[in-house]
Amino acid sequence: MEVNIGLLGCGTVGSGVVELVQKRSEMIARLTGLEPIITRVLVRDSHKSRPVVFKHEQLTTNASDILEDPEIRMVIETIGGIEPARTFILQALRAGKHVITANKDLIAEHGAEILDTAEQVGMDVYYEAAVGGAIPLIRPLKESLTANEITDLKGIINGTTNYILSKMTATGADFDEVLQEAQDLGYAESNPASDVDGLDSGRKLAILASIAFHAKVTLDDVDVTGIRTISATDVAYAHELGAVIKLLAEGTDRDGNLSLQVRPTLVLKDHPLAHVSDAFNALYVRGDAAGDLMFFGRGAGSLPTASAIVGDMIEVLRNLRMDTALRVRHLLLPHKRVRRGQGEPTRYYLRLTVRDQSGVFAQIATIFGLAEVSMETVLQKRSSHETAEIVIVTHEVGQEQLNQALTTLYATDSVLTVHNVMPVTGGAQ
Amino acid sequence: MEVNIGLLGCGTVGSGVVELVQKRSEMIARLTGLEPIITRVLVRDSHKSRPVVFKHEQLTTNASDILEDPEIRMVIETIGGIEPARTFILQALRAGKHVITANKDLIAEHGAEILDTAEQVGMDVYYEAAVGGAIPLIRPLKESLTANEITDLKGIINGTTNYILSKMTATGADFDEVLQEAQDLGYAESNPASDVDGLDSGRKLAILASIAFHAKVTLDDVDVTGIRTISATDVAYAHELGAVIKLLAEGTDRDGNLSLQVRPTLVLKDHPLAHVSDAFNALYVRGDAAGDLMFFGRGAGSLPTASAIVGDMIEVLRNLRMDTALRVRHLLLPHKRVRRGQGEPTRYYLRLTVRDQSGVFAQIATIFGLAEVSMETVLQKRSSHETAEIVIVTHEVGQEQLNQALTTLYATDSVLTVHNVMPVTGGAQ
Ligand SMILES: NC(=O)c1ccc[n+]([C@@H]2O[C@H](COP(=O)([O-])OP(=O)(O)OC[C@H]3O[C@@H](n4cnc5c(N)ncnc54)[C@H](OP(=O)(O)O)[C@@H]3O)[C@@H](O)[C@H]2O)c1
Ligand SMILES: NC(=O)c1ccc[n+]([C@@H]2O[C@H](COP(=O)([O-])OP(=O)(O)OC[C@H]3O[C@@H](n4cnc5c(N)ncnc54)[C@H](OP(=O)(O)O)[C@@H]3O)[C@@H](O)[C@H]2O)c1
Repeated sequence: MEVNIGLLGCGTVGSGVVELVQKRSEMIARLTGLEPIITRVLVRDSHKSRPVVFKHEQLTTNASDILEDPEIRMVIETIGGIEPARTFILQALRAGKHVITANKDLIAEHGAEILDTAEQVGMDVYYEAAVGGAIPLIRPLKESLTANEITDLKGIINGTTNYILSKMTATGADFDEVLQEAQDLGYAESNPASDVDGLDSGRKLAILASIAFHAKVTLDDVDVTGIRTISATDVAYAHELGAVIKLLAEGTDRDGNLSLQVRPTLVLKDHPLAHVSDAFNALYVRGDAAGDLMFFGRGAGSLPTASAIVGDMIEVLRNLRMDTALRVRHLLLPHKRVRRGQGEPTRYYLRLTVRDQSGVFAQIATIFGLAEVSMETVLQKRSSHETAEIVIVTHEVGQEQLNQALTTLYATDSVLTVHNVMPVTGGAQ
Repeated sequence: MEVNIGLLGCGTVGSGVVELVQKRSEMIARLTGLEPIITRVLVRDSHKSRPVVFKHEQLTTNASDILEDPEIRMVIETIGGIEPARTFILQALRAGKHVITANKDLIAEHGAEILDTAEQVGMDVYYEAAVGGAIPLIRPLKESLTANEITDLKGIINGTTNYILSKMTATGADFDEVLQEAQDLGYAESNPASDVDGLDSGRKLAILASIAFHAKVTLDDVDVTGIRTISATDVAYAHELGAVIKLLAEGTDRDGNLSLQVRPTLVLKDHPLAHVSDAFNALYVRGDAAGDLMFFGRGAGSLPTASAIVGDMIEVLRNLRMDTALRVRHLLLPHKRVRRGQGEPTRYYLRLTVRDQSGVFAQIATIFGLAEVSMETVLQKRSSHETAEIVIVTHEVGQEQLNQALTTLYATDSVLTVHNVMPVTGGAQ
């Protein structure tokens, strides 16, 4: 039996979906007893040339052709952005169609509305492709690891920033230069803010944390720092310290108190996340029964993302054949609270420019001592006639204590600039 | 509503299941609408002290108390071995009970019989815990990645050998010494054959390959070499070459031709599998759409294994609530053929002892040259007055060509011993 599917959007991801469904429809039919047919495809411009082959009548620029077609049982949204994607998805659900989406922005911001609507009307929404591209993350968290209380998530979940930081590490070039190059190559968008300011990672962390911690989490709950301030100098110091700089997304659940952070981090080379380069993504998960787990793979790209979407499609086909829906519910535990600005105690890297005069270092040591922040490593280099650069790695310290030391540092005349403050992760501790 | 569950066996894994179900039953009930209750537990010796708390009447030494109890809807088998586990599982299925098992030996050897029986009687069999302990592997392969043609599996899927090899690498000790220590610590069994001879890895590879390649694969289809011949000398040479020795399980599908290998392998340190130490397991998967993926985590242990089993239990509860069964079928594609002794072309490491006389090296070079095996690296060391040790790393070469060179080497007087021949993986090539 055939199942008619409507595809909204046919860009990078949508065309991958068309290609993969055409290639695998027979196999999918053997597996599920139902053959998926993409009958209509919504685009903005029906005259654009596309890397996949259609009968011309399949293309439409009118969403109603899909959303109001009673023969279409499933809608795949690959338009992106909030509107009109949100309206289309809600309309599809209310018209009795199951929905698959790769839209992380939308799920992070309006996930609750969409999932609630789906539940009311008895339809399913799947979004494996929204986080980590091809890597199975949502389903393992929602289904395989459900017996666990998950306490920690730690990952590299934005390909653009990981590409930029990997390039900076490999070439020693500065941020602006590498960003320009990434834009020229199409790895970064012309407006890169969402990626380099950490917002994309923050949204994906919100999606993962909602599932793993059984809570309602949005971008507003995440402390976000981007990578614009990371310089070639920081990359070189990191190297000297046996580390690489990565944009890490971290979530912790300590007895119902959630902390969510996206920030550039020094990852020591003995940590597996140090070896996740370029366009790859990886997520560490700690569960109270399972222990430590890691999932690694391609975070984006046409076919990798389509792999996740068509995986979801097969799930919907199974549900259709079995005549079940809402098989896997989203569980919300009411006692979960998000606390902003309260990251776990960690080691920190600080880079300062100070006046090169006698007694400055003793002064800094005193400031740290008074705040009870002890130092693990100190690197000191003269940077000009009058200034010196100091890099400090602290022992593990709470965020408040560190802030106390920083406040005093900022107020100290001989400390000219505090360039970057980053957590340090990995290493035997 | 309560669902009665029977547990067969209450050793390392079974007691973890009891603990985790007790801890999470309320959460599971919220999630699935059904509360799991382990009503009966089969053991051999009901007087043994156990790390989990029972009412005494829960324990039984009579399997019929579980298998013939019509109130029991689900049976979890954690006895291990072929019999009586096989008979119990078949009996449970025929009595209309869903089955979950951690028994890799049984699934590898009698998986087809068990899955066929389950299908005939309309019951489900889940076995996530049988491979990779806590790591979600079976479900991602069966459900998330189904849109892919999976072409490659490569993994470390036996904890005991990985522990032994990791220790040999860390301490420089020899195999026998480390094995003894592992036995004393309980990391290796008193009869370690199944682990150190690679059979356990072979069985797990058979299970993974059956699913990933949609084929019927058993241990007989796998070329298996264990780690007994690996010496401290090999470990030291590997280190000199920038590699570590790991017992790798590899499966490839090239247009329906399957090749399945378990063998000690030099893994260069730039390869993520080089960093999987001790009791951790990891599996690399390559799919034609998804690209490269890796899954990493604890391969064994009481709670990690229970995490996978209770994950499966929650799936069965969902199926019970939805009144569905056989939702995910095992797809067999008829054109798949296993070819033994036909691994992919690869680089090889060889260690030889030769007579220390002039011209020997030229002789070996000629033998390799005639077989068209080119050498990438050669290390040569005098080992006594009369003998020298030569280590060769070849360029990529087919198995047949290599065997041709080996045959001539064996027949050469001045070549006294060929100690070890291992593939080399990783590195930029
Ligand atoms: N690219 C990736 O690797 C990746 C990975 C994971 C998730 N995602 C997510 O997947 C989604 C799609 O990304 P993409 O890279 O495929 O985007 P894209 O290449 O820009 O494609 C967008 C498609 O949507 C169509 N479209 C846009 N606005 C429309 C409107 N108002 N009405 C009708 N059609 C409209 C476009 O039509 P025209 O072709 O006519 O312009 C185009 O076909 C986004 O949510 C993204 O975050 C992408
Ligand atoms: N251990 C791990 O980390 C791990 C990881 C993955 C998979 N597995 C698999 O899980 C299974 C169980 O392993 P395990 O380590 O838990 O084994 P185990 O500690 O030896 O426990 C076996 C249990 O089965 C009971 N039993 C044995 N033979 C029986 C019989 N004929 N009738 C009734 N009860 C019997 C034993 O009873 P008594 O307690 O009375 O002796 C014991 O409770 C095996 O298939 C293993 O391959 C184990």
